[in-house]
Amino acid sequence: MDDKSEHLITEAALLAFCTQVLEKIGVPADDALLASKNLIEADLRGVHSHGVVRFPIYVKRILDGGTNPKAKVSVVRQTRTTAVVDGDNGLGHLVGIRAMELAIDKASDGDCAFVAVNNSNHFGTAAYYAEMAARKNMIGLSFTIGAINHMAPWGGAEAVLGNNPFAIAFPTREPFPIVLDMACSVAARGKIIVAAKEGKPIPGDWATGPDGLPTTDAVEALKGFVIPVGGPKGYALTLAVGLLSTMLSGAYFGRDVGDLYEKTTEAQNGGHLFGVLPVSSFDDLDAYLDRMDKGIGDIRGAKKAAGVERIYLPGEREYLSLVSHRKNGIPIGRALTEELRAIAQEYGVTFDLIS
Amino acid sequence: MDDKSEHLITEAALLAFCTQVLEKIGVPADDALLASKNLIEADLRGVHSHGVVRFPIYVKRILDGGTNPKAKVSVVRQTRTTAVVDGDNGLGHLVGIRAMELAIDKASDGDCAFVAVNNSNHFGTAAYYAEMAARKNMIGLSFTIGAINHMAPWGGAEAVLGNNPFAIAFPTREPFPIVLDMACSVAARGKIIVAAKEGKPIPGDWATGPDGLPTTDAVEALKGFVIPVGGPKGYALTLAVGLLSTMLSGAYFGRDVGDLYEKTTEAQNGGHLFGVLPVSSFDDLDAYLDRMDKGIGDIRGAKKAAGVERIYLPGEREYLSLVSHRKNGIPIGRALTEELRAIAQEYGVTFDLIS
Repeated sequence: MDDKSEHLITEAALLAFCTQVLEKIGVPADDALLASKNLIEADLRGVHSHGVVRFPIYVKRILDGGTNPKAKVSVVRQTRTTAVVDGDNGLGHLVGIRAMELAIDKASDGDCAFVAVNNSNHFGTAAYYAEMAARKNMIGLSFTIGAINHMAPWGGAEAVLGNNPFAIAFPTREPFPIVLDMACSVAARGKIIVAAKEGKPIPGDWATGPDGLPTTDAVEALKGFVIPVGGPKGYALTLAVGLLSTMLSGAYFGRDVGDLYEKTTEAQNGGHLFGVLPVSSFDDLDAYLDRMDKGIGDIRGAKKAAGVERIYLPGEREYLSLVSHRKNGIPIGRALTEELRAIAQEYGVTFDLIS
Repeated sequence: MDDKSEHLITEAALLAFCTQVLEKIGVPADDALLASKNLIEADLRGVHSHGVVRFPIYVKRILDGGTNPKAKVSVVRQTRTTAVVDGDNGLGHLVGIRAMELAIDKASDGDCAFVAVNNSNHFGTAAYYAEMAARKNMIGLSFTIGAINHMAPWGGAEAVLGNNPFAIAFPTREPFPIVLDMACSVAARGKIIVAAKEGKPIPGDWATGPDGLPTTDAVEALKGFVIPVGGPKGYALTLAVGLLSTMLSGAYFGRDVGDLYEKTTEAQNGGHLFGVLPVSSFDDLDAYLDRMDKGIGDIRGAKKAAGVERIYLPGEREYLSLVSHRKNGIPIGRALTEELRAIAQEYGVTFDLIS
C-alpha cells in the first residue's frame, strides 16, 4: 500500500477516529480504546490486511446485531493453569486481550497457562496476543479459527476449513520479539482477488477451482479454494490450528463457521486459544536471552543469497514498519480513506489526514 | 517402499532384533526395549524415513562415543507445571519418552505442563510423543530441533537452520488420534537424493543451489538448501520450532548444531519441547469428543475433488498402515535388509524375515 497515490494519517488521529466511532455505536469507552489500539497496531506494523481496512465490517456487524458492543467477557471454567473464556460475542480484539491477560496472570507465579475462548469474533492479527506475553518474558502462543472457510481438506472440493492463523512470540534483547505469525495457505485470498480484477493468471500453487484441482485462472480460483502450504502438510496444520482454537471451548468449527462479511446479523461463535510459557521457570532469564542473542547472530550473520542485502528475523520488518509509521504517519489507500471519511461524517467524528 | 522386490518382517522379530543389538552395545534391557518400540512404530506407521533405516546410524553413534548407551535421564529444574530434563546424551527415543511421561505426570491433576529437554539426540518421529498424551485424553505437543542443518534463513545461502519437525495430537473416538506431524520444508531431502541418483530434475520449489537461488538441478540442490513451505512462512516456522526446542533448555541451535551422520564421535546436545493440555480441565471429555466427532464428520464428508476416493484425517493413513503392517509384516528394502543382517551377524542375534 506504500504507493504515492495514497493518504497518510497519524497514529493518534486514526486511534481517535476508531475509538470515537466504536463509542458512538455503543462500545464502552475503555473497551473501544483497547480494541482500537489493537486494530491500529496492525497498520503500524504494515499488516494492512488486518488493520483499519476491516474497520467498516466490524462497525457493520455491530450495527446489524452480529457483534455485541457491550460484551461482558467472563470465565466459565478454570483451573489454576487453564480457563475457558466466554467472549459474549464481543469484538475479537477485546476478547483476545482479556483472554491473554488471564493467561499471563495465571502464569505470574511461574506456571505455564492456556486459555481457550468461545463466542468471540475476528480478532485481527494473532501476533498481537503472542507479543503481549513476550513483553512479560514469556513465550506466547496464539491460535484462532479463521472467520470464513476458504480451504478444502486435502483431496476435497468444499470449503469446510478456514485458513487458520497462529502466532508464536519469543522474548529477545532486540527492541522487538521474534514472532512467527502465519496463516496456512500459500497465498492470501486477497492476492487472488487482485489478479482476477486485473485479468491476470495466478501461479499454479495458489488455488484450486471449484472442482478441487489446481488452476492458474484467478476467476475460477475465486470460485474454488486456497491451497495450503506444503499441500497435505498445510491441510494438517490448518486443521490442527482450527481444532486447538475451538474444540476445548465449543467455538464453531467446520460447516458451522459463518462468513465474517456475509452473515452480519449472526453471531460467529469464534474461537481462540492462548498459551504462555514463562521463561524463568525453565532457566534464568539472562541465560535464555544470551542464547537468543547468539541464535539471532547466527541467523543474521548467515551468508546471503545473491542479491540479498539483509536477512530479517520474523517480526523485524513489522517492527521497522511500526517505527517508520509512528514517525511518518500510516498510509491509507484512497478508496479506504473515502470509506472511513463517510463513517466519520455519519457519526460526526473527526478524521484528520496528514496528507 | 511397498514394492515387490523387498522383504517382510514381523513386528516381533524386528523388535527383538533392535532390542538385542542395543543391549549388546551397552543399553540396559528396559531402555533398549522402550527405544526399539518407539523406533519400530515409525515403520509400522509407514513412516520408514524415521524407522529402522536409521538404526545403523544410532548403533554407530553409540559405538563411536557420540551417544551414551547408559544415559541417566534427570530433571535439572522444575516447577509444578514446567521442567527441564537433561537427556545425559542418551538415545533420543528414550529421552523423549521420559520427558513426555514427566509432562503427562505433571498434568495428571489437570494442569497444562511443558517439559524442555537438552543433551538429547535424534528422537525419531515427533508424532510418537504427541500421541502418548492423546492416549491420556490430553492434547499433546512435541517439538524438536533437527539433527542436521539443511535450511538457510529466508534470503540466506548458509545452512544455519534445521528442517525442524513438530507434532500436535488430539484425542478422538476414532481408533487413532488426529495427529499433525510435519517438518518445515516443501520436500524431504531424501527425495532430492533419489532424483540426483536417477539424474532427474526436481520441481523448482524444492531446493536452492549453494547460491541460495532456486534450482531444478538435483545435484546442485544437494550442495544447497531445502526450501521451506510457503517461503518466508516456513522460514519463520522452522525458526520458531527450533527456538521452542532449544532456548528454554540450552540445547544447541544454529551453527552449534552438528550432523547426525558426520560427527558420530561428538554429542549433539539435541533439544526438544513437550507440552500437554488435559482436555477435561477445559470441558467435559464427552462434550469435547462429541465436537470432535462432528468436526471429523465435516472433514470426511466434504465434497471430493475429481478423482479422489476418500478424504483422510491427519494420522489416519499412518494408522491404517500400522494395522496392515501388524497383520502382514513390515516391508524392508533389500539394501537395508543386508545392512541389518550384517549387524545381526556381528552381534550374534537373530534377524528372521517372513519373506
